Amino acid sequence: MKEPNDVLVPQHYKRLKRGPQVILPKDIGMIIAYTGVNKNSLCVDAGTGSGWLAVSLAKVAKEVTSYDTREDFIKIAEKNKEMEGLGNLTIKKGDVTKKIDEKDVDIVTLDMPNSDKALKNAYKCLKEGGHVVGYLPHFEQVKKFVETLNKLGFKDALALEAIVRDLLVREQGVRPSTKGVWHTAYLVFAQK
Amino acid sequence: MKEPNDVLVPQHYKRLKRGPQVILPKDIGMIIAYTGVNKNSLCVDAGTGSGWLAVSLAKVAKEVTSYDTREDFIKIAEKNKEMEGLGNLTIKKGDVTKKIDEKDVDIVTLDMPNSDKALKNAYKCLKEGGHVVGYLPHFEQVKKFVETLNKLGFKDALALEAIVRDLLVREQGVRPSTKGVWHTAYLVFAQK
Amino acid sequence: MKEPNDVLVPQHYKRLKRGPQVILPKDIGMIIAYTGVNKNSLCVDAGTGSGWLAVSLAKVAKEVTSYDTREDFIKIAEKNKEMEGLGNLTIKKGDVTKKIDEKDVDIVTLDMPNSDKALKNAYKCLKEGGHVVGYLPHFEQVKKFVETLNKLGFKDALALEAIVRDLLVREQGVRPSTKGVWHTAYLVFAQK
Amino acid sequence: MKEPNDVLVPQHYKRLKRGPQVILPKDIGMIIAYTGVNKNSLCVDAGTGSGWLAVSLAKVAKEVTSYDTREDFIKIAEKNKEMEGLGNLTIKKGDVTKKIDEKDVDIVTLDMPNSDKALKNAYKCLKEGGHVVGYLPHFEQVKKFVETLNKLGFKDALALEAIVRDLLVREQGVRPSTKGVWHTAYLVFAQK
Repeated sequence: MKEPNDVLVPQHYKRLKRGPQVILPKDIGMIIAYTGVNKNSLCVDAGTGSGWLAVSLAKVAKEVTSYDTREDFIKIAEKNKEMEGLGNLTIKKGDVTKKIDEKDVDIVTLDMPNSDKALKNAYKCLKEGGHVVGYLPHFEQVKKFVETLNKLGFKDALALEAIVRDLLVREQGVRPSTKGVWHTAYLVFAQK
Repeated sequence: MKEPNDVLVPQHYKRLKRGPQVILPKDIGMIIAYTGVNKNSLCVDAGTGSGWLAVSLAKVAKEVTSYDTREDFIKIAEKNKEMEGLGNLTIKKGDVTKKIDEKDVDIVTLDMPNSDKALKNAYKCLKEGGHVVGYLPHFEQVKKFVETLNKLGFKDALALEAIVRDLLVREQGVRPSTKGVWHTAYLVFAQK
Repeated sequence: MKEPNDVLVPQHYKRLKRGPQVILPKDIGMIIAYTGVNKNSLCVDAGTGSGWLAVSLAKVAKEVTSYDTREDFIKIAEKNKEMEGLGNLTIKKGDVTKKIDEKDVDIVTLDMPNSDKALKNAYKCLKEGGHVVGYLPHFEQVKKFVETLNKLGFKDALALEAIVRDLLVREQGVRPSTKGVWHTAYLVFAQK
Repeated sequence: MKEPNDVLVPQHYKRLKRGPQVILPKDIGMIIAYTGVNKNSLCVDAGTGSGWLAVSLAKVAKEVTSYDTREDFIKIAEKNKEMEGLGNLTIKKGDVTKKIDEKDVDIVTLDMPNSDKALKNAYKCLKEGGHVVGYLPHFEQVKKFVETLNKLGFKDALALEAIVRDLLVREQGVRPSTKGVWHTAYLVFAQK
């Protein structure tokens, strides 16, 4: 039987370090597709955590700045940045609920406790039409995040969960795996 | 209530033309995340169809070549390429079961009837470690595709479905939408 | 393509009237299996609504009493009771948040606004080990219901969703249906 | 975190013995709801296995006969029958692909290898309008079962999967469980 790691962590992510809980590729893929991140995009990310999302964004975007308040996490993420040789990723110590230095940003991704408190700064740093993304495990967080988005004037808030299920393809027959991962977090998307 | 189009087609895809059945962003995101497509990647795609996948890949990859046998589809895809201003996307009339011109390719994506018949040429054109992806609606196709991958020497075949479900966030309460899209196609990934 | 009615409403339910929103057989089956309703069971149900749950319970239980405050709903449910010829189902006009007449009940099922307000009376009328079930569309209701269960001394609260998805079995291949029903309500189970 | 056993095996099933793979209550509930098994129903079941389905049916039906070819399984099921004190359940050693003794049966449930080979006898023993149910882990089995149903003249074949997912209701927030059971088997229903 396949383990969640076989199903949810493709080979090229396995070389990355895993410190704090990572955002899995299934959710990273959704973030890229739903925001339209591309070679011209400026991205701001917080918190960095192990840096899986920041690293993945840096591979497809122009510039990525990722913020975290914890130095131990930043160290892990710096290792992952180095491993992938990403010159366009800057990891900063800082609290995005207090300040975001960047301007005219295309995408802000938020995976941190009380991320709704960072939405005001996210709004300020985004260019018109820019995207904000929240990664939120609990439904109460989704509710508060969406309510804050609406209050701040963000448009088209959309709350999703991305579920990935694998098929076992074997001689005796094809069937979905018995067990698997049901939930990581909800993804909330909106545009300035 | 949200319509599937609100949930599965983000704003920046709505300006694209839809001729033949498109690959939806939920599946495009998975393809990007699971193959690790990035600014250095050379991609081959077939069939082009409406070109949604080819266009999305071209936004994050170095070069994309997309093949289709039908001129009516190619016309739609050319319009979408133009709309997005993508100089690094080449759309060719051709049958990848017969011939793939490109060499040292990083990713081959296949969404076409009998795509298992294109796997031999996919193998030849891929560099070592390169990824192949099949987009396959039926179980029987998944089975045949995986069996062919194994025969040809591809590694780590993984068959997945990516399911996206939206939450309704309203004053009266938060709940998943009543109805939605359950299935588009299975995604099969493997590496040379 | 199969319509939700083909998938979620088996033939023997199609002859029943549908007034207010019904509890679907997928959820009725869960209620029967998870409470262990059987030929010796005394059941109390509220609100009756169209009576689909009450009728289904009466077919397998000893006695069922179903309460509703609305006469128009009771009329529909009485028609369904008659159609199925169920002498062991009593439909009463009444508000279970105020009073439940029955004693030593095995199962209480609650599908009504503010059903948490009926839990005190549910506790009183249940025999030791008896089951209570809440049918709750929104997360907030689940939360409040479970918190009230815990306060009142109910044990082993379990909140579930039952999802039914159909396969299309056709000559061209087997695949899950494209669209379908994702959510009716959460089911919360607990025991006295 | 909740274990699959907490979520998928309600308390009143925990006292039953588990020998060979059991049919879980989520699927038993679907079988009861979708066939309309009730106090007047005659049921035939094969293979008995640990007897969880046979025991559950006997609690709500008039008479249940369950067949298995293996004496070790029959012993386990007899223990479960005794535990539940079910006088209306008969467990027989026998192969339903060869012979079903009962007549005018309301429901035949089949959970055994090559259950499609038992469909001819199932058809013969069922009364007009009677239900057959197949419990089938692999999609190839579903395909063959449905094809055989159609050939034999059964009507309204419906292939489903019943998926149960639990919510964690905790002070820090409500969210779906991280991991869980994705697949047991497909359920195929049809009527004579």
